[in-house]
Amino acid sequence: MSPWSAAALGDRVEDIETPALLLDLDAFERNLKRMVDALSGSGMRLRAHAKSHKCPDIALRQVAMGAVGICCQKVSEAAVFVQAGIQDVLLTNQIASLAKAHRLADLARQARIGVLVDHAQQVLWLQQAAVAAGVSLDVYVEVNVGANRCGVEPGQAAVDLALVVDRHKPLRFAGLQCYQGAAQHMRDPAQRQAAIAQASEWARQTRDAIEAMGVQCERITGAGTGTFWHERDSGVFNEIQAGSYIFLDRDYSDNLSGPGDCLFEHALFVQTTVMSQSQSHQAIVDAGLKASSVDSGMPAVWQRPDLRFVKASDEHGVLSLADSAQLKLGDILWLVPGHCDPTVNLYDELIGLRAGRVESIWPISARGALL
Amino acid sequence: MSPWSAAALGDRVEDIETPALLLDLDAFERNLKRMVDALSGSGMRLRAHAKSHKCPDIALRQVAMGAVGICCQKVSEAAVFVQAGIQDVLLTNQIASLAKAHRLADLARQARIGVLVDHAQQVLWLQQAAVAAGVSLDVYVEVNVGANRCGVEPGQAAVDLALVVDRHKPLRFAGLQCYQGAAQHMRDPAQRQAAIAQASEWARQTRDAIEAMGVQCERITGAGTGTFWHERDSGVFNEIQAGSYIFLDRDYSDNLSGPGDCLFEHALFVQTTVMSQSQSHQAIVDAGLKASSVDSGMPAVWQRPDLRFVKASDEHGVLSLADSAQLKLGDILWLVPGHCDPTVNLYDELIGLRAGRVESIWPISARGALL
Repeated sequence: MSPWSAAALGDRVEDIETPALLLDLDAFERNLKRMVDALSGSGMRLRAHAKSHKCPDIALRQVAMGAVGICCQKVSEAAVFVQAGIQDVLLTNQIASLAKAHRLADLARQARIGVLVDHAQQVLWLQQAAVAAGVSLDVYVEVNVGANRCGVEPGQAAVDLALVVDRHKPLRFAGLQCYQGAAQHMRDPAQRQAAIAQASEWARQTRDAIEAMGVQCERITGAGTGTFWHERDSGVFNEIQAGSYIFLDRDYSDNLSGPGDCLFEHALFVQTTVMSQSQSHQAIVDAGLKASSVDSGMPAVWQRPDLRFVKASDEHGVLSLADSAQLKLGDILWLVPGHCDPTVNLYDELIGLRAGRVESIWPISARGALL
Repeated sequence: MSPWSAAALGDRVEDIETPALLLDLDAFERNLKRMVDALSGSGMRLRAHAKSHKCPDIALRQVAMGAVGICCQKVSEAAVFVQAGIQDVLLTNQIASLAKAHRLADLARQARIGVLVDHAQQVLWLQQAAVAAGVSLDVYVEVNVGANRCGVEPGQAAVDLALVVDRHKPLRFAGLQCYQGAAQHMRDPAQRQAAIAQASEWARQTRDAIEAMGVQCERITGAGTGTFWHERDSGVFNEIQAGSYIFLDRDYSDNLSGPGDCLFEHALFVQTTVMSQSQSHQAIVDAGLKASSVDSGMPAVWQRPDLRFVKASDEHGVLSLADSAQLKLGDILWLVPGHCDPTVNLYDELIGLRAGRVESIWPISARGALL
């Protein structure tokens, strides 16, 4: 990592060294509040996804504002948050080995831990590890509700696996993971709504079939920033796993919105500096693909419709300039990352800004926690 | 970062926790040797690019095998290597502010430091910082030899800037940076050869024009893993900046080769585990885009032509299986990253393997050194 920080508390925004990862604290707090308001009175629990921020300071704020806990995607990521005092973590992922199951079960000595399964082998690993650690684990059957990634098919396959979980004490069958990841970035709001209607129907049928076997199916959990109000209104889901709402990726704001959609604002930015301008209608900034992940496309240039970020190499970003664009060497710009999660994962610190000054510097403690 | 390491010294390869970044030490050492052999007798200096590995253990090995020093892309990256004992670093980049120039000049108290310019403003920042620190800096004029990114145009613009540098003591005009980055991944070997022939011609004309003004142009530096033998044979270049040759990205091995091309082998791998297999002809591994950067396309699955890595989300990789493919939950696979540089930048440690055991664990000390 860098031997020095990009900023110190109290610095003016223009004195922050670049590239740096910035959080607009006012926008961030408005986003936190918008989610609370959107779920208020719905009976819906929020279990915020921490893979987006990897930052205990943010997770603790989410819990303080009513989230029941967090989701993590990796066992080592979960370990960082448990160590920071988060008491309830759902690993929204399968574990891939007995060794990983042991790591996970160890965490359950300190916090309530949930995990997904989509194969009986995973149940066996988890049981063995839970017995060894003397703990219980909440186990959710992941159902494929349209993303076609992990998860058993809705209906009988899910019933069968839920019964397997139910037979393997000290595991506790906690419910169904029904995340429709493929719907989150569908641009057409009607398409997103239809995808979640279908997912909800599969979730409902599967839940009813499991309960018909005498096994309680307490929790139906899922949803993301692009669709969660449909899950909220589904009558089936009772827990929301959105994560990106706090930051809002460019790839989310590119979604078209429909009536009743819940909207957020950009709060995460990469501050960058113009470092070269030797071609006409082009400028080079000091943020490339090691500063803003390009897996979901290029970042947008904030409040500069005259500038287009067209290409990234490791440490260079290429901007295309409109005829009218005025720009000079050393100018500072803000980028809106195409995809916030992997962008945050490139940084060690998140610099919080308010009224043009650095108010907070939060460690991204689970950055690189891949295991 | 993860609270624990993926492996310990002496571990068997199958016991390494995944996803993990592995270095096949035999292949790596053969690659190091191949580069030495390729440059032997040519009078060409090797200044290995450290942005690929960000790992002092590797840089020290490169220097021990004859490299004159290293290239870095960021000032904070350079600081990590200077601290680790590297005595000669060229920042193959422009600095974008006076603050950065001060950071760079500070390093010149401990090591020989070079840097690029393509604008007179940068020269002024560097001079001011060098004077303040009481140091000299080697300054190279970057010439646009076809990549159309940074760099002044060949000929008069470069001459003018070289003269500006030459007038600004304690800066030392050290030569020309002539990196043709756009040529590195041209698939057709004839196209790559033609691009470097053109770049070399521009470099030659520019050098001659500068020397005609009575200013010595000592160094013509550039080249990458995809083309460096053409620069070696150009009669103009006298320093090679290749970096990826030690690892070999999938995106390099996709280049077609021609007569006389210098070839390397894959030495860097992401070890991953099959974590879900609930769809037919598909499997999910625990390495997604936070484990293997996808900016240059998906990774390849090593020695498994029956498996194709077709899609990555944050922490999931989707494999497409041929009819004949045999795979089960918990199986271990090796991925060849599409682009090694940003992949290495996702990890804290590089696990060295020999004969199926962990022989070394090297910190990737400059990981995330973006400033």
